[in-house]
Amino acid sequence: MTVHIVLGAPLKAQDLDLDYQEGDLVLGVDGGSLLVKQAGYPLDLALGDFDSLTQQELKEVDAYANQRYVKPDQDHTDFELALDLARDYSRDDLIYVYNFQGGRVDHFISISYVVYLDQYEDLIPRLYLLDPANTVSFCQPGTYQIKKEPDKDYLSFIAMTPVSGLSLSGVKYPLEDEDYAVPRALISNEFAGGEDMVLSFRKGLVMVVQSKG
Amino acid sequence: MTVHIVLGAPLKAQDLDLDYQEGDLVLGVDGGSLLVKQAGYPLDLALGDFDSLTQQELKEVDAYANQRYVKPDQDHTDFELALDLARDYSRDDLIYVYNFQGGRVDHFISISYVVYLDQYEDLIPRLYLLDPANTVSFCQPGTYQIKKEPDKDYLSFIAMTPVSGLSLSGVKYPLEDEDYAVPRALISNEFAGGEDMVLSFRKGLVMVVQSKG
Repeated sequence: MTVHIVLGAPLKAQDLDLDYQEGDLVLGVDGGSLLVKQAGYPLDLALGDFDSLTQQELKEVDAYANQRYVKPDQDHTDFELALDLARDYSRDDLIYVYNFQGGRVDHFISISYVVYLDQYEDLIPRLYLLDPANTVSFCQPGTYQIKKEPDKDYLSFIAMTPVSGLSLSGVKYPLEDEDYAVPRALISNEFAGGEDMVLSFRKGLVMVVQSKG
Repeated sequence: MTVHIVLGAPLKAQDLDLDYQEGDLVLGVDGGSLLVKQAGYPLDLALGDFDSLTQQELKEVDAYANQRYVKPDQDHTDFELALDLARDYSRDDLIYVYNFQGGRVDHFISISYVVYLDQYEDLIPRLYLLDPANTVSFCQPGTYQIKKEPDKDYLSFIAMTPVSGLSLSGVKYPLEDEDYAVPRALISNEFAGGEDMVLSFRKGLVMVVQSKG
């Protein structure tokens, strides 16, 4: 099972392509709730302050969603609240986040920065940000075998913190035990022919991005 | 005078709106060079490996640009090379970077992460990333008076590192001497009626984003 979190911008309903299986949980955040309805997926929970919707649209969402949850405070973003609810639902399932980047760069930054917060550290291995051009995941120290997505061309490794002992194999530009003292974006690498690559590091936090060329 | 760096994606030439004055320097990076030509601005220097251009397009750029500079190594990104050349040109002028975010999130991350590098620390006060929806600037410790851009609605403060003593005034959600132990995105603030706001902090690195709603 998977938790699907659908954010508000910029996709249109016809472009929203959830990897949905019977029994999954779907959370719509603000305008994302309306998108879920328009795209015809079940909507287990609509959450946010819904200030991007008209009164009529909000009524539609209310009639469609199993539940509506209004954000209780200003100290958490809608996305943080969605993560809290995803964790309440399950301690193990993958969490797919769709529609995470729109025209506003601050939104994308805000969403990816949740991995710096202690209270979401447990979610890091389960969290995926998905849009038509990018798949973003986050790694804590360890060794990972990463599988090529057939429709993606490039592979980027973003040291989001200082990182120690970064090794990459099975890629066009391999690395062996490299240290980075400041955050650093190693972008536009590629799978070296095979379907898998291996990433390992000893300290820090690494974002992995597979993207379309 | 200003240095204008035009990157390759995703704008079309008709949407490229440089704040250009006679005597400014224009650097086109890869596909950005062709855009500069198509938009009718002077092109002082075209740089990159130009692998996104056809042979015919590359010929066009060559005929149009005053100079072409091919990236000498894999250790620097095209954007880093453009910054090096901008610094060679001038130690003081503002550096405006256009067309910095496309479909690939790794590109935007790579571009904004240059501010973590020692070799570009001197450029931080001069660097602006501009697109139709966002104006991004970067602040080192100090006090800044920030002016509202008439076409922007939201104001975000991104602590890109641990930050000490962050104060915000003249905004809807003010802060007084706050500390952040990890990177943190404080987004969707707004100017509180007036045209100016004041940001100050004692330690760290803060990205400021003005964006359209």
